[in-house]
Amino acid sequence: MPEQDMTKPDWIAVDWGTTRLRAYAMSAAGDVLDRTASDEGMGRLKPVEFEAALLRCVGHWLGDRPTSVVACGMVGARQGWREAPYAAVPTAPLPGGFTMAPTGDPRLRVQIVGGLSQARPADVMRGEETQIAGAIAAQPGFDGVICLPGTHTKWAHVTGGEVVSFLTVMSGEIFDLLSHQSVLRHSLTAEGWDETAFAAEVAETLSRPERLTARLFSIRASGLLHGTGAAEARATLSGLLIGAELAAARPYWLGRDVALIGAPALAATYGRALALQGVAARILDAEAMTLSGLAAAQRLIAGAEA
Amino acid sequence: MPEQDMTKPDWIAVDWGTTRLRAYAMSAAGDVLDRTASDEGMGRLKPVEFEAALLRCVGHWLGDRPTSVVACGMVGARQGWREAPYAAVPTAPLPGGFTMAPTGDPRLRVQIVGGLSQARPADVMRGEETQIAGAIAAQPGFDGVICLPGTHTKWAHVTGGEVVSFLTVMSGEIFDLLSHQSVLRHSLTAEGWDETAFAAEVAETLSRPERLTARLFSIRASGLLHGTGAAEARATLSGLLIGAELAAARPYWLGRDVALIGAPALAATYGRALALQGVAARILDAEAMTLSGLAAAQRLIAGAEA
Repeated sequence: MPEQDMTKPDWIAVDWGTTRLRAYAMSAAGDVLDRTASDEGMGRLKPVEFEAALLRCVGHWLGDRPTSVVACGMVGARQGWREAPYAAVPTAPLPGGFTMAPTGDPRLRVQIVGGLSQARPADVMRGEETQIAGAIAAQPGFDGVICLPGTHTKWAHVTGGEVVSFLTVMSGEIFDLLSHQSVLRHSLTAEGWDETAFAAEVAETLSRPERLTARLFSIRASGLLHGTGAAEARATLSGLLIGAELAAARPYWLGRDVALIGAPALAATYGRALALQGVAARILDAEAMTLSGLAAAQRLIAGAEA
Repeated sequence: MPEQDMTKPDWIAVDWGTTRLRAYAMSAAGDVLDRTASDEGMGRLKPVEFEAALLRCVGHWLGDRPTSVVACGMVGARQGWREAPYAAVPTAPLPGGFTMAPTGDPRLRVQIVGGLSQARPADVMRGEETQIAGAIAAQPGFDGVICLPGTHTKWAHVTGGEVVSFLTVMSGEIFDLLSHQSVLRHSLTAEGWDETAFAAEVAETLSRPERLTARLFSIRASGLLHGTGAAEARATLSGLLIGAELAAARPYWLGRDVALIGAPALAATYGRALALQGVAARILDAEAMTLSGLAAAQRLIAGAEA
């Protein structure tokens, strides 16, 4: 019965996205005592089902007294457990005013981190604000750009502890749709990579971004006519989309200090594309930044209640 | 028994794409005596199943003597009935050398029109070459650009009866993927249109095409933050993709005589986008161009056999 041996956590950190729920038993000092995860993401749950899903994951960590649970991600979306409003930029990524989720179990005290919004150009983020807060907590005084590559890559300009502006680019989702569901799926494999093709395509698209949608079909045609391999095709598609993203996000990275937060392989790919433009981006560990941000939120909550 | 009353056709025209088979009983003069269609497209058939699918559609038109069947479209792809090789541009869209499909029924004599290819930039077309041949037959001496909007829109530069170069842009497929399967599906409806939003987005994207992938997510964010309606969102997505396509295809339409061949609503949308750039494109009927092209192919076949 290991549960009985474990010291009860001081608080619980939760990263609750569309497809995954990740929970961490935390000490008061911010150390991870235990961790667990489930596939009961926000996309599978109705609002009344969230509490039970959370208890299935973290119930064995709870003691007799109420435990503070701090959650970020799509759990706070309109279709989530309880909507946690967006804060408009410019703003600190964690401006306070967390949203209490309704619970029946007296051992739970759940607060949800709100997202950020930008009026013009219209943009929103939810979840990344916590990683940005974690990066700022880890590097006080950071002045530059944080890029969070993923399904919807975010570029955030951070200065003076605030997010000044941000930009979302859907490169990851477009890559998935094109590589799995478009005519290009016949030309690509799930794995394989040709770094030379990637670098050439980033450079070419960055200089001529208007070619993006026209260039896509030539990946398929090159396979049919010239027998271009699947690894080269996959790297070309990635280079095309990341090159177009760098063209769109140029005001974010040009001449800035850039930090990358994301899955290791993808963050490294963005890092190489930026290096080709002369930008030496640092890569920060994504889970560490999430936990650092949730710990900052927990400190704000504890301070407000003290 | 209407079949017994119908005069047997002189030849049969077949437009056989990935999802549909359309067949026309033709007179020697090129008039349509009867028509039929089925959903036994190339995508559903193995090579050995094509003859039976064709007979289910046109069997009642066949007499005792062999009837010439001329087919265009994906039926001639590598995964089709029998591969009909690509002819490299510059070339007449119907350079001759049709590909005979293997048949067991002695009443059938099936020939497949081959597609066109371009080595650099790598590109292919299959099916559109027949509509281009039809447009040239209908307007001998045409010198300009034929744009065929669709899932994979083609832009073909035609002069002296030949296709000199062409460009494929995947705008249609990307629109379908984004509007039905991406996060944007929450912001769009299947119908509805805002012409002002469309025109503004075409102009904006044509002048700043590098914004394409960054602008996409703002359609979703505008819905969340500003309550932008689904009709405006749909027209904006279309304007964004067509604007980006016009930016990529600028050397094709700028200062040229442009003819459009496609589904009426989509061809009209492209026509309005081009009109905003000062290009008065004519719209040609897509089915009429297919039949005109297949009739030109039948004349070549009959001439070669005479």
